[in-house]
Amino acid sequence: MQTPPTPLSSLTPHKLRLRRLGIDTYQEPVLYMHRDCRVCHSEGFEAQSRVELALGDRTIVATLNVVSGDFLAPDEAGLSEAAWRLLGAQEGDMVSPRHPAPIESLGHVRAKVYGRHLTQAAITAVIEDVTAGRYSDLQLAAFVTACAGDRLDQEETVSLTRAMVAAGERIDWGEGLVMDKHCVGGLPGNRTTMVIVPIVAACGLRMPKTSSRAITSPAGTADTMETLAPVDLDVAQIRRVVERTGGCVVWGGAVRLSPADDILIRVERPLDLDSQGQLVASILSKKVAAGSTHVLIDMPVGPTAKVRSAEAADLLGRLLGQVGQTLGLRMRVVQTDGLAPVGRGIGPALEARDVLAVLRNLATAPADLAQRSLLLAGEVLEFGGAAPAGGGLALASAVLADGRAWRKFQDICAAQGGLREPPVAAHQQAVHALRSGSVLAIDNRRLARIAKLAGAPGAACAGIDLHVRPGEFVERGQPLFTLHAATPGELAYALEYAASQAETVHVLEDA
Amino acid sequence: MQTPPTPLSSLTPHKLRLRRLGIDTYQEPVLYMHRDCRVCHSEGFEAQSRVELALGDRTIVATLNVVSGDFLAPDEAGLSEAAWRLLGAQEGDMVSPRHPAPIESLGHVRAKVYGRHLTQAAITAVIEDVTAGRYSDLQLAAFVTACAGDRLDQEETVSLTRAMVAAGERIDWGEGLVMDKHCVGGLPGNRTTMVIVPIVAACGLRMPKTSSRAITSPAGTADTMETLAPVDLDVAQIRRVVERTGGCVVWGGAVRLSPADDILIRVERPLDLDSQGQLVASILSKKVAAGSTHVLIDMPVGPTAKVRSAEAADLLGRLLGQVGQTLGLRMRVVQTDGLAPVGRGIGPALEARDVLAVLRNLATAPADLAQRSLLLAGEVLEFGGAAPAGGGLALASAVLADGRAWRKFQDICAAQGGLREPPVAAHQQAVHALRSGSVLAIDNRRLARIAKLAGAPGAACAGIDLHVRPGEFVERGQPLFTLHAATPGELAYALEYAASQAETVHVLEDA
Repeated sequence: MQTPPTPLSSLTPHKLRLRRLGIDTYQEPVLYMHRDCRVCHSEGFEAQSRVELALGDRTIVATLNVVSGDFLAPDEAGLSEAAWRLLGAQEGDMVSPRHPAPIESLGHVRAKVYGRHLTQAAITAVIEDVTAGRYSDLQLAAFVTACAGDRLDQEETVSLTRAMVAAGERIDWGEGLVMDKHCVGGLPGNRTTMVIVPIVAACGLRMPKTSSRAITSPAGTADTMETLAPVDLDVAQIRRVVERTGGCVVWGGAVRLSPADDILIRVERPLDLDSQGQLVASILSKKVAAGSTHVLIDMPVGPTAKVRSAEAADLLGRLLGQVGQTLGLRMRVVQTDGLAPVGRGIGPALEARDVLAVLRNLATAPADLAQRSLLLAGEVLEFGGAAPAGGGLALASAVLADGRAWRKFQDICAAQGGLREPPVAAHQQAVHALRSGSVLAIDNRRLARIAKLAGAPGAACAGIDLHVRPGEFVERGQPLFTLHAATPGELAYALEYAASQAETVHVLEDA
Repeated sequence: MQTPPTPLSSLTPHKLRLRRLGIDTYQEPVLYMHRDCRVCHSEGFEAQSRVELALGDRTIVATLNVVSGDFLAPDEAGLSEAAWRLLGAQEGDMVSPRHPAPIESLGHVRAKVYGRHLTQAAITAVIEDVTAGRYSDLQLAAFVTACAGDRLDQEETVSLTRAMVAAGERIDWGEGLVMDKHCVGGLPGNRTTMVIVPIVAACGLRMPKTSSRAITSPAGTADTMETLAPVDLDVAQIRRVVERTGGCVVWGGAVRLSPADDILIRVERPLDLDSQGQLVASILSKKVAAGSTHVLIDMPVGPTAKVRSAEAADLLGRLLGQVGQTLGLRMRVVQTDGLAPVGRGIGPALEARDVLAVLRNLATAPADLAQRSLLLAGEVLEFGGAAPAGGGLALASAVLADGRAWRKFQDICAAQGGLREPPVAAHQQAVHALRSGSVLAIDNRRLARIAKLAGAPGAACAGIDLHVRPGEFVERGQPLFTLHAATPGELAYALEYAASQAETVHVLEDA
């Protein structure tokens, strides 16, 4: 029963052929290996094992799923879309799956679970491992949970912000002010950025704005801007746009300003845990990395907004101010009305239409969007010294009224790659009031859901055009809103849902 | 551009054909839908969405992966192995994926993140949702992390234990004592249960033992017992075995005594967070559900054991005792030596061989396994009143020596379905000492890894036969251990790894 020893050279390395399986796991790198795969057995890999793959100069760690089906051969290693992209793989590339080194920084996560204070070095070690993709989704969830609530003190929040900045790219604008703004927890349709940037730039201040795409909403500022001009610019392109025009509105995700934050956010979102420290680090790390010197925070406060009370707003504002200052930023926080959606359109193209109406001073321009934009632009102008204290709103209003803002916006779009017309939906249908009365309330959450069922933001033309506002009187049969969709199917589904949610626009019959 | 309304009846329900993809995600239910799938669009599902599926009287919630590859058609819904099993699906079954109701109990998880005390009602709500499969892996990780460390107080630990018991099956043994034992954090080869149960049952006490399979180790007690007799018994079968023989050694996983714990453990394991409260609830929920009245806790203490110091053992022992008492259990905790592996075999069949040698009083019986088993059996006998205080060890020794224990073990195996011979590996090879000297230490962790590379516990015959113990003198070229494997490939891989880890058995050259 004794077996002669097998020479080692015949055993290693164990190569598998990479295959793109086209499975979108929402950014978690997943490796699929067949249960009859020799490497699986010899390495003792099992489902949920963490496995390291190296290709060229790239190394990733993926979570293993073991396949017994016939869509994968025993000598193949299937990759999820995220793993394929991170590894820079090509069909037919060969890899040797192996055990990753133990993640030392998990010890710091455990320390935080026990309530210990984490040093800058500890937090930096965690964030470096997170950025390198060494944490599994479960481990990310543990880190996020251990730091959630009020468990990061101000010093740790500063450390987390610094670590996030260090893990990404950083833009250096040289001498001079770099203005920025950020809205904490969006309201539907709140596209003030696209009005503020041209006003501020037209007044001679520099304002290079990186924005995000929609995560759960029907449109992010980057999605809306993209219906008017390209937004996928790299750092060199951004620099050219800003040098030429003084401003830009681009997608921040293309720039990798805070890759660790991008990774943490995808775990934070489904957990829906409030976390002051992580929120502050998420916002400020991107501002520091973007090279901003002056940051205005727009904080909408209202019962359905992210910040629900003036007290919570004060607390968060203070933390943002203090951490930002420690990191060398000048900070200003403005609390705004967070009660109702802003503008009339919901969805990229419809929101872009509202922005264009404001910039072009059209009679159809939504007054609330114009007013919010001017208020915030005025604050930025005073903050940057382009207007005297108390004179910002007047200057902003003048720049908008005389067409300078609109011309600047056209310049910015041209520099980003060319101004274009937002698309118009081929399929539209109105939803009508079932009774006469006053509009008591509009449910932002349901409106967002209907707009997404209609196809937003994937279909840029899709969304909702609101025709009424809270407090207005409507007649039975009067259109409340119009659905826009790219296909009849999506229109029908959105209508079906809207019909089942009659109180989305709540009309109270007059007594 | 106005589209006529489509009748609702033509739109719903949206059925997809189920397909078993054979993907083992380690128990997380995953649903695979094609990106061109109509339901995906209309419902606004995206990668990582939680999706509810109902089939007959079963409902599960799965995490969505979106597929763009061609191994899934747009009108198909692919399922992972866990989802397929939980749903009880058959090829060709039709389902209508839909949004699950929001999980209200996540509010309690958030409260715990903020350090609030959770009531029994809150913990019960969480555990009910966990058991129903409503929590995603990320949400499970958040709950586990929020409760880890020392964040559950004794009252919450009692609540968690009660909630876990309520969520599973429970065995009622009627009047009389029901003895049980549990080892906290196993040592390799520590198969005392299979010796204790027949001794205790032979003395007239009832001892129905449910054991676990290996999770990360080369063998669990259920794996080892399975090489000698069937262990997959349901509650009715267990009852018949115990009525006939007074004891049993079966796999607890087939009985669903604490399904919530089974779910939490698969998240706890990769996170590797110590959690007193969850450990206590995990142990005691299964004891209460199994209908035990008297529980002896074997707590090995040593630098590489789960419990590393006498102080930690005292603390954990006190918590186990107090929580157990609150739940109506009589508890006794014994601290044992946790320094070295027990017995000579590592792997199901080799460990079974050691157990049989002890029960049959063979000269080859490992003395340490026999001594530990007798010590603990004596404690159980005194605890249950079958021996006077101080007289347990003598009684246990007599019952083992005169063959009563061996006869009882044969009876138990026969009642469980028949005693059988453990398998013997077709491929064996010894690893020899590279120098003469004293065995300084044996690395349990590396030994376990080598045994797993050799195929344990999947191949029951695979593992390691240790020939030396710490403190012994060995000559150069003397065999240190023999590898056992079912295939030449696994033997070769295990040998290769063993050769690269020369200090697994650390021989110190005599000066």
